[in-house]
Amino acid sequence: MRMVDLIEKKREGHELTREEISFMIKGYTDGDIPDYQMSAMAMAIFFRDMTISERVDLTMAMVESGDQIDLSSIEGIKVDKHSTGGVGDTTTLILAPLVASVGVPVAKMSGRGLGHTGGTIDKLESISGFQVEIDGETFNNLVNKNKIAVVGQSGNLTPADKKLYGLRDVTATVDSIPLIASSIMSKKIASGADAIVLDVKIGSGAFMKDLESAKELAHAMVQIGNGASRKTIAVISDMNQPLGFAIGNALEVKEAIDTLKGKGPVDLHELCLTLGSKMVYLAGKAENVDEAREMLEKSIETGKAIETFKTFIAAQGGDDSIIDDPSRLPTASYTFEVEAKEDGYIAEIIADKIGIASSILGAGRTTKESEIDLAVGLVLNKKIGELVKKGESLVTIHSNTPEVTEVINRIYDAYSISQRSVELNPLIYDIIYQ
Amino acid sequence: MRMVDLIEKKREGHELTREEISFMIKGYTDGDIPDYQMSAMAMAIFFRDMTISERVDLTMAMVESGDQIDLSSIEGIKVDKHSTGGVGDTTTLILAPLVASVGVPVAKMSGRGLGHTGGTIDKLESISGFQVEIDGETFNNLVNKNKIAVVGQSGNLTPADKKLYGLRDVTATVDSIPLIASSIMSKKIASGADAIVLDVKIGSGAFMKDLESAKELAHAMVQIGNGASRKTIAVISDMNQPLGFAIGNALEVKEAIDTLKGKGPVDLHELCLTLGSKMVYLAGKAENVDEAREMLEKSIETGKAIETFKTFIAAQGGDDSIIDDPSRLPTASYTFEVEAKEDGYIAEIIADKIGIASSILGAGRTTKESEIDLAVGLVLNKKIGELVKKGESLVTIHSNTPEVTEVINRIYDAYSISQRSVELNPLIYDIIYQ
Repeated sequence: MRMVDLIEKKREGHELTREEISFMIKGYTDGDIPDYQMSAMAMAIFFRDMTISERVDLTMAMVESGDQIDLSSIEGIKVDKHSTGGVGDTTTLILAPLVASVGVPVAKMSGRGLGHTGGTIDKLESISGFQVEIDGETFNNLVNKNKIAVVGQSGNLTPADKKLYGLRDVTATVDSIPLIASSIMSKKIASGADAIVLDVKIGSGAFMKDLESAKELAHAMVQIGNGASRKTIAVISDMNQPLGFAIGNALEVKEAIDTLKGKGPVDLHELCLTLGSKMVYLAGKAENVDEAREMLEKSIETGKAIETFKTFIAAQGGDDSIIDDPSRLPTASYTFEVEAKEDGYIAEIIADKIGIASSILGAGRTTKESEIDLAVGLVLNKKIGELVKKGESLVTIHSNTPEVTEVINRIYDAYSISQRSVELNPLIYDIIYQ
Repeated sequence: MRMVDLIEKKREGHELTREEISFMIKGYTDGDIPDYQMSAMAMAIFFRDMTISERVDLTMAMVESGDQIDLSSIEGIKVDKHSTGGVGDTTTLILAPLVASVGVPVAKMSGRGLGHTGGTIDKLESISGFQVEIDGETFNNLVNKNKIAVVGQSGNLTPADKKLYGLRDVTATVDSIPLIASSIMSKKIASGADAIVLDVKIGSGAFMKDLESAKELAHAMVQIGNGASRKTIAVISDMNQPLGFAIGNALEVKEAIDTLKGKGPVDLHELCLTLGSKMVYLAGKAENVDEAREMLEKSIETGKAIETFKTFIAAQGGDDSIIDDPSRLPTASYTFEVEAKEDGYIAEIIADKIGIASSILGAGRTTKESEIDLAVGLVLNKKIGELVKKGESLVTIHSNTPEVTEVINRIYDAYSISQRSVELNPLIYDIIYQ
C-alpha cells in the first residue's frame, strides 16, 4: 500500500477502506508517512469529505494509535460529556456531581487547556488542597465509592490526533467536519467513555458560527459515536453571549456551587439540566429523558447534588468548607465596576471579546507554559435582553492589578445597548440523536 | 505574510496576488516554507484551479527562482519548441536545422531525460565526435553564424519547479492543469525563449489521454506564454501510435536525416512542417503560417535543410559524413523481424507498449544514472490503417543481445490486427493561438 495512491483515491472522491485508513494513521504516527503526504490528504478530505464509515474508521484508528483508558473495573455505564468550548462554560463542574448524585458513574479525565479561563482541572485547583493527580486504581475506587472522581489527563492518548491536529493548524485544514469530528470523538473514546453527550456551541464565542455547521458537526459526531458502539447524543446550545455570569476559575467554582444549590444563573441551570438528563438517560438510570430531568431537579432541591460535590471535594483532599463559605476560595485584590454609559436594553455581549478581557486579567493561558491566576475574572451583571440604566454596573472586574483600562475598553467593545427591546436567542437550538 | 493564510485563501477559491505567489515560491525554494504547507497548497490548487493571472505569476516566480539564460547577444527572435512527450518523437532533431535553414535562430538547450529513448542530446551523441558541452559564448556565436546550436542543460534553472515537481509526484498533485502548465512554461522561459511553439500530444502514448484535457492544457500554456509576453502557439497532435517509424537514438538520427531530405515518414514530415511553420511565423520570418510552410517545403526540396544539419553537426565537432552515409551511425549486433500472425488491417499500435519494448532493449534510461545504448531500438514497418499479410514484418528489432523474447511479446501485445479497414485518427487535432 502506498500513501500517494490513497491520497489520489480520496482526491478522486472514492471511499477509503478501514485497512487503508489504519495503514495511513499508523504510518503517520510512526513517522513512516511524512507530514507533506498527510497534509495533502487532509486537504483532499477537506474537499471530498468522508463517509460515515470512513469517519468511524479514522476515529478508531486514532484511538488505537495510543493508550486507551480502561474503566472496566468501574460499575455501570460511564457517560462522558464534551463541550466544543465557549466563554464562561462551567457545565462540567456542575454536571459531574449532579449526575453522580443520581447514581451515574462519573470517571472524568480532564485537561488544563488553553483558553479564556483554565480547564476543569485548573478550576478545581482553586479549591485548597484539591488533588488532581491520582493513580488509576484510586481513581476507579473513588468512582465506585462516590460515583465521581476527576483526574488530570495522563498517558499517551491519541498521539495520531495530536500530530494531525498540529499539522492541520498550519496547513489550513482545521475547518473540516470529518477531521474535527473524528478528533473530538477519538479523545472521548480513548478516555474510556461508554456513552457520550456532546454540547455543540454556536455563536460569536464558539468555533461554529452558524446553526447549519453546528448541526453538521453534531450529526457527524453522533454518527461516529453510534457507529463505534458508543451511544451519543448532541445538544446544540447558544454561545452568542457568555454562559452564566462568571468567567474565571474560582469565580466559576463559586457559580457551580450556587447552581448545584439551585441558585445559579438561569441559562447555566437550564443547560446543565438538558445535558445532565441526556447523561442520566444514556447511563440507563432513567426510562426517558423527562424522567431523568425530574431526578436531577429533585437532587438539586433536596440538597443531594451539592452534598455529592462536597463529598467529591473531600475525597480528593480539597477543602470542602468552601461549599458553605465560598469566600474561602481565592479572591482578587481589586474589583472594578464597568458602568453603563446610557440607558437601554442589552442587545449584544460578544462572547469572544469578554473571553479576551478575561485572558488579559490572567484567568487563562496563552501558551502551555503560562501560569494562570485562579482568583481573577469577570462577573456579568447584565445579560442580553435586560434593561440597564446609565451608571449601573454591566460587569464586575476581579483583578490582581489596579491597571485595567484595556480590560474595561474590551468590555465596552463587547457590549451593545439598544433603545429597543431585544429578541433573545434560544438557549437550546436542537438535540441530535443520530 | 503567512503561508497558512495563503493556503486558506486558495482553499476558499480566492485569487492569490503576484506578491503572495512570489512570497510562496521564494519561501519554498529557500526552505522557509515546508513541504507540508506546499503540498496542502498544491492540493488546494488541484481543487480550486488558478486564474490566468495566477498562472502567469506562478510561472514567472518559478523562472525567477533560479538562473535565467541570456540569449540577448543572439540576433533575432529566439523561438523554442516543446513537446509534452511521446514515443518515437524525433521532431526536435528535424525542426532545429529545418527552421534554422530559413533564418530562424535556434539556440536549443536540451536534456537527456528519462524515457523510452534518450533525449535530443543523447541522440546527437550517437554522431561520432559531436560535442554537447559548449560554453555560452561559443554557443551564442555558433547560433549567430549558423543559426543553430544545441547544448546540454546546465545551470540552476527553475529550482522551485524541480522541488515542487518532486513533491507533487508523491502527494497526488501531478494532474493539475495550472501546475503542469506553469512547470513546462517556466522551464522554456528560463531557457531564454522569446516565443514558444508547443506540441501537445494526446493518446495512448501521451500524458494527456483525451482531446478535452489536451486542449485545456494547450490553452493554459498559450495563455501563460502570451501573458508573460512570449508569443506562444500550441499544436495538438496524435500520439495514439508512435510517431514516424524509428524508436531509438541512432535510428532516430537516421530518420531525421531522411526527413530533412524529404524522404521521411509522412506523419513525421507533416508534423514537422506544421510545428516548423508556426516557429518561422513567430520568429517574424514569414507574413503568415502558409508562407512559412512554403519556405520550409522549399528548403527541404532544394537541399538547404539537410545542408544546415550538416553544417550544424560539423560546427559541433560531429562526423558529418553520416548525412551521406547514415550506416556510419552506431548499429546493433542483431536484427529480428516481428512477423504478423494473421492477415488484416493494423487497428492499433499502443505507443506506450512500444516505448517500453524499446526501453527493455536499452534505448532509454530508467534512472538518471542508467547508461543508454545508442544503437538499439525498433523500426515500425507497418502503421495503423495499413494492410498486412501473415508473415510480413510488423517491426524490426535492433538489439545488442540475441535474447528478445520479452520485447517480441510486448510488440505483439501493442499491435492489434482487424479484419475490417480502420479509420485513422487525424495527425493534427487543433491549433491553439490563445
